[in-house]
Amino acid sequence: MAKKLTSREKDYSQWYNELVQNADLAENSGVRGCMVVKPYGFAIWEKMQSELDRMFKETGHENAYFPLFIPKSYFSKEASHVDGFAKECAVVTHYRLKNDPAGNGVIVDPEAKLEEELIVRPTSETIIWDTYRKWIQSYRDLPILVNQWANVVRWEMRTRLFLRTSEFLWQEGHTAHATQEEAIQETKQMVNIYAKFAKEFMAMPVVIGTKTEAERFAGALETYCIEALMQDGKALQAGTSHFLGQNFAKAFNVKFSTKEGKQEYVWATSWGVSTRLMGALIMTHSDDAGLVLPPKLAPYQVVIVPIYKGEEQLKAVSEVALKVKNELENLSVSVKFDNRDTHKPGWKFAEYELKGVPLRLAIGNRDLENGTIEVARRDTMEKETLKISDIGKKVVNLLDKIQQNLYTKADTFREEKTYTANTYEEFKKLIKSGGFVYAHWDGSSESEEKIKQETKATIRCIPQDIACEEGFCIYSGKRSHRRVLFAKSY
Amino acid sequence: MAKKLTSREKDYSQWYNELVQNADLAENSGVRGCMVVKPYGFAIWEKMQSELDRMFKETGHENAYFPLFIPKSYFSKEASHVDGFAKECAVVTHYRLKNDPAGNGVIVDPEAKLEEELIVRPTSETIIWDTYRKWIQSYRDLPILVNQWANVVRWEMRTRLFLRTSEFLWQEGHTAHATQEEAIQETKQMVNIYAKFAKEFMAMPVVIGTKTEAERFAGALETYCIEALMQDGKALQAGTSHFLGQNFAKAFNVKFSTKEGKQEYVWATSWGVSTRLMGALIMTHSDDAGLVLPPKLAPYQVVIVPIYKGEEQLKAVSEVALKVKNELENLSVSVKFDNRDTHKPGWKFAEYELKGVPLRLAIGNRDLENGTIEVARRDTMEKETLKISDIGKKVVNLLDKIQQNLYTKADTFREEKTYTANTYEEFKKLIKSGGFVYAHWDGSSESEEKIKQETKATIRCIPQDIACEEGFCIYSGKRSHRRVLFAKSY
Repeated sequence: MAKKLTSREKDYSQWYNELVQNADLAENSGVRGCMVVKPYGFAIWEKMQSELDRMFKETGHENAYFPLFIPKSYFSKEASHVDGFAKECAVVTHYRLKNDPAGNGVIVDPEAKLEEELIVRPTSETIIWDTYRKWIQSYRDLPILVNQWANVVRWEMRTRLFLRTSEFLWQEGHTAHATQEEAIQETKQMVNIYAKFAKEFMAMPVVIGTKTEAERFAGALETYCIEALMQDGKALQAGTSHFLGQNFAKAFNVKFSTKEGKQEYVWATSWGVSTRLMGALIMTHSDDAGLVLPPKLAPYQVVIVPIYKGEEQLKAVSEVALKVKNELENLSVSVKFDNRDTHKPGWKFAEYELKGVPLRLAIGNRDLENGTIEVARRDTMEKETLKISDIGKKVVNLLDKIQQNLYTKADTFREEKTYTANTYEEFKKLIKSGGFVYAHWDGSSESEEKIKQETKATIRCIPQDIACEEGFCIYSGKRSHRRVLFAKSY
Repeated sequence: MAKKLTSREKDYSQWYNELVQNADLAENSGVRGCMVVKPYGFAIWEKMQSELDRMFKETGHENAYFPLFIPKSYFSKEASHVDGFAKECAVVTHYRLKNDPAGNGVIVDPEAKLEEELIVRPTSETIIWDTYRKWIQSYRDLPILVNQWANVVRWEMRTRLFLRTSEFLWQEGHTAHATQEEAIQETKQMVNIYAKFAKEFMAMPVVIGTKTEAERFAGALETYCIEALMQDGKALQAGTSHFLGQNFAKAFNVKFSTKEGKQEYVWATSWGVSTRLMGALIMTHSDDAGLVLPPKLAPYQVVIVPIYKGEEQLKAVSEVALKVKNELENLSVSVKFDNRDTHKPGWKFAEYELKGVPLRLAIGNRDLENGTIEVARRDTMEKETLKISDIGKKVVNLLDKIQQNLYTKADTFREEKTYTANTYEEFKKLIKSGGFVYAHWDGSSESEEKIKQETKATIRCIPQDIACEEGFCIYSGKRSHRRVLFAKSY
């Protein structure tokens, strides 16, 4: 039987760690801060990748690949970028090992020191804009709409599987445009694609907005983001899209000749989501029994478990199970038939609950006689007995329902946990118990910083579709024209 | 007009470099030995990945992801592995930069030195077997059939785009088995999958065989490989599959309890292909006009170029072109319609020749009157005028023919360039002019090494399906029981 998880109520953080490991999603490795993404976890990430990649390509983007290493000097070229990124990073200083003359394995060869240190990319703006200089001469070469799927490294002192690891997997889009308007349009388009993906595939409601100056990407003029609310009342930034203005074009001297023959700097965007989305997915839907997966991202949507005694019953049950499997696969439902004789049905039930398989079908001897099959939903834990003759239509319908239900449930939770505060006292009380809090803010980094120090809450975003409303900053009492979204966050 | 390439006859190596860059496949980056894979090149690699990934999954493999970094001490655990891999590699020694007190950008923070250096993975056996120890207790946990798509780094002094770069992209399969037989079976299965992929998708004939001890993977008991012949008469190793015995299980102490309750070491394989396949693809088919792509790996199989004067003709031509595009797409043919008004048809023709698009369709005003369309094959450069009403069927048929023709052509070339040598004199003469040479060898590393020193030819493999034949080693004159395959190589 699969091990029981610590409950969320008892210790949310412990529950998360146990779930990630017991559901075979990921585990820590022998390398500090770097995770191993296990096959079951990776299969979910592949589904995410495949849908996102399709959405990127449908909007005209192409994939490419840029070097893992970035010369140290590149970081110094964009002043605010270097402060944000060139600090906690992995630095390659040598290119050779040699046998230890003392006989203890291998040592770094001091003769093989690099002239200039190389940084393992924490993000690729610098190396990519150094490349774009060669690709862009004229307006005919624009726009460049490129994305890269890659690993990146940011040295982290405190790590948590998927949420914050020293190495993680992500995609980073880097686009180049002839005009400011087109670049801003692209930035917005991409944050909207992220929101659509979160809603339609992850069944995760998000708030779209822009970051304050303090929370902006290092080197960006504007950062758009999607923010989701986790079950413990903390916010999680799930994707960002940056309007970079001409900052990188100026730093790397990337100009183009306009139709009129003038030389102008190119406009830039960048945007990304990472394996952090796995953490968001887990914490949006899962429960004390384990992972709960939206059908659209489940490695297999249905598992069939045979209930039998002896070879003969197994044979009879398997025959029907394989027919059902085949029928479902013809309806584009992904199915696993678990006929292992090394584990009992009860063990398997617990295992697939832990792994969040949306629907579990069980077929036993009595079902054969009655032409029935037992269907259990992972999201509601409801069971019903269905006619085998109806199974195709019913399963397709149930998967749709589960996908809908997960979104509705998450959305209701978020609604319930979303508050407005009009005074600082009220604000502090609300923030303490967790959730999204809309409050007035005077727009200054000082007030933002003070609130953060005193309550640990940050401004998650200035929501894009919030109405103007006159009011007074909860901290300074100064005039404010609209509320912003506060929360404690991951 | 696209720049003309240096001819293969004049300078093969120069031709290759120009082709890779001018056809927008890849280019060198600002980081020594690391390449940028450009969108068009990456689209071909994505097609390769997608087919290989499908073949891996159909044979029961799953993807996962392991850390980029490997602690230095891991390499010392498998004695022969450390000699082969832990030498020319990128070494991370620090984890932080800081502002230079002297004001010159950033410097490595001497306080942030790692206790143990980390190696950027040159291959992942060590970190993966360190992980498998946690995954494997019982025979129930076996086999493990895992693959990883990843970047790897091997510090290379002399690099060439795709063929030998310090960083490259690849897949590495790592499997764990309960028995020797099963592991050997897996090793063979995978080399056969590589050969099938080379033949059916790359239209590239290969010889399957095993490596000699000297050429074996560091840590393997047997290395299977596929070897292809390039147009300059050099061999290219295009994929390898290793039977690792229990070497890594012993080095990392990975045991399992058998059904009978005994503790045994686990049996291992690993297998991989890399972006080197891009080099093989280019050098197998391309010509002095540029790249030639097999339809199954072409980012777009058909390009439609409109021939027109003025807006009105463009409109009329476009209407027909889009109908044709639509019809072809419904037949699963990928099509690009290049209606850019920034470039003339002649420029476009040269561009798509350079980029190896299998079929080019041209539609002009006269075609509209006659209901015709001009079709040009990239492989033979033949043109014909077809009825638009037949176009769907004809294009599908032509794409099949091109795929076949490329294989046949490459296979014929290889046949012509395959020789047998019975004396060392004969051997030296044949090797000098390039090609595959079958010759007798006494099985000793000494003779192998001498032949290499004297002729630059290596034993590419001991072909798997070669008949036994008694003879005498061309070098030592000692007895030999079958011929092996020699060539100069990349």
